[in-house]
Amino acid sequence: MTAERKTRQLIAIGSGKGGVGKSTLTANLAVALARKGRKVGLVDADIYGPSQPTLLGNYGQRPEVSEDKLVPVASKFGVPVLSMGHLIDAGRAIAWRGPMAGKALTQLIDAQWGDAEVILVDLPPGTGDVQLTMLQKFKPAGAIIVSTPQDLALIDAARAGQLFDEAEVPVIGLVENMAGYACPHCGELSDPFGKGGVETAAGRLELPFLGRIPLHMDIRQSSDAGTPPAAGDSAQAAPFLAIAEQLDAWLCANV
Amino acid sequence: MTAERKTRQLIAIGSGKGGVGKSTLTANLAVALARKGRKVGLVDADIYGPSQPTLLGNYGQRPEVSEDKLVPVASKFGVPVLSMGHLIDAGRAIAWRGPMAGKALTQLIDAQWGDAEVILVDLPPGTGDVQLTMLQKFKPAGAIIVSTPQDLALIDAARAGQLFDEAEVPVIGLVENMAGYACPHCGELSDPFGKGGVETAAGRLELPFLGRIPLHMDIRQSSDAGTPPAAGDSAQAAPFLAIAEQLDAWLCANV
Repeated sequence: MTAERKTRQLIAIGSGKGGVGKSTLTANLAVALARKGRKVGLVDADIYGPSQPTLLGNYGQRPEVSEDKLVPVASKFGVPVLSMGHLIDAGRAIAWRGPMAGKALTQLIDAQWGDAEVILVDLPPGTGDVQLTMLQKFKPAGAIIVSTPQDLALIDAARAGQLFDEAEVPVIGLVENMAGYACPHCGELSDPFGKGGVETAAGRLELPFLGRIPLHMDIRQSSDAGTPPAAGDSAQAAPFLAIAEQLDAWLCANV
Repeated sequence: MTAERKTRQLIAIGSGKGGVGKSTLTANLAVALARKGRKVGLVDADIYGPSQPTLLGNYGQRPEVSEDKLVPVASKFGVPVLSMGHLIDAGRAIAWRGPMAGKALTQLIDAQWGDAEVILVDLPPGTGDVQLTMLQKFKPAGAIIVSTPQDLALIDAARAGQLFDEAEVPVIGLVENMAGYACPHCGELSDPFGKGGVETAAGRLELPFLGRIPLHMDIRQSSDAGTPPAAGDSAQAAPFLAIAEQLDAWLCANV
């Protein structure tokens, strides 16, 4: 018998537009996959605005270096993570031109990931150097696109989809974020960013719709506090766990 | 008498993090300044995710070229604008590495701006090539920083502030966006993204706090429809007009 070398899969989480909850989704999907027993790592490719150390509660820690490569920083949720936020000081602007950003991405991905079988990559907004380096140098096995239902966000989500398409990276599906806000006073739902636009867009683009995550203060507060909802069993965990199930099934079918 | 050549001032609107309403603020400030009689132009420097043609309702129009330079596209609000969104097709990803993005910015700024005395520049999220080209090649007279009250957004806003600081671009002040959402059912206010964080941050950084814009469905809907609230007299216009007053006063004091 020969030792089988399992392929490590990269899954890109992109959005086109910033501020739609891509980093929050990535952190919670990683935590949910780890809960299911997957060996999962997370690369925070948002070089200029790294959020993962805050989201996963390991801000202020530094990665060690072994054999000239970075060693991912452990988090208490079973997800090792590498982020520029681990390498630079808070409040320092990472004023780098594209080639530097591309090199940084390479360092984060080409690290000591050990036995991780899946690495989720939290892409920065836009379709620039980091995205191009990612697609050309480390082709992801698949991509998930996140958007709010607002038209302005959907336009940018379509751009991101087109970039994956041209690079022949299969889009696993679309996620709608910030839909359905329950008023903490009367409990009634409303939709400050609209509703349903992402599901409609998925239909038009003939892509799977993976689910909807509501706008909820608990998600914002737990994100700022470094305790992803997907690590617990609150109502806010459910949509993340449901999307992680679909990603898990896709991974099983596409190894 | 000699003809006096008035200096044209560039004002950068930045955020660090995407999706905090930077483009919406920029469009509305430009419209509000035009209402006050200022000759104002708008450069959409968000090369990878241009929103201004949608926000200002001139999507689908193409700029003409005169003497090898672009001629800004008129909008019905008295604000000429140049955006990558005027130059490329909808749904096409602008997959450019940094130097290309820097050149695109140069084309947008170094255009036939005619008698415009102020140009607002809607910066993309992050602190990469476009921001660096902007600061090094076209030093703005001042900058406004936008953030939501969420900790994660404030961290990136601080990075943007630090970048302006190092480039010796005075920060005119901070704006809090998406604070205070009135439930359309019961009318009670709540704060899905928190509240007050930006004012607190402004105090800590010893920078002026310019005001707060609520999260409101009317703003989202009119933004998607290309009719900026600042062009009308609704309740949603008021916070934009108040911030524009302060920018106008700053411009008067700093010519």
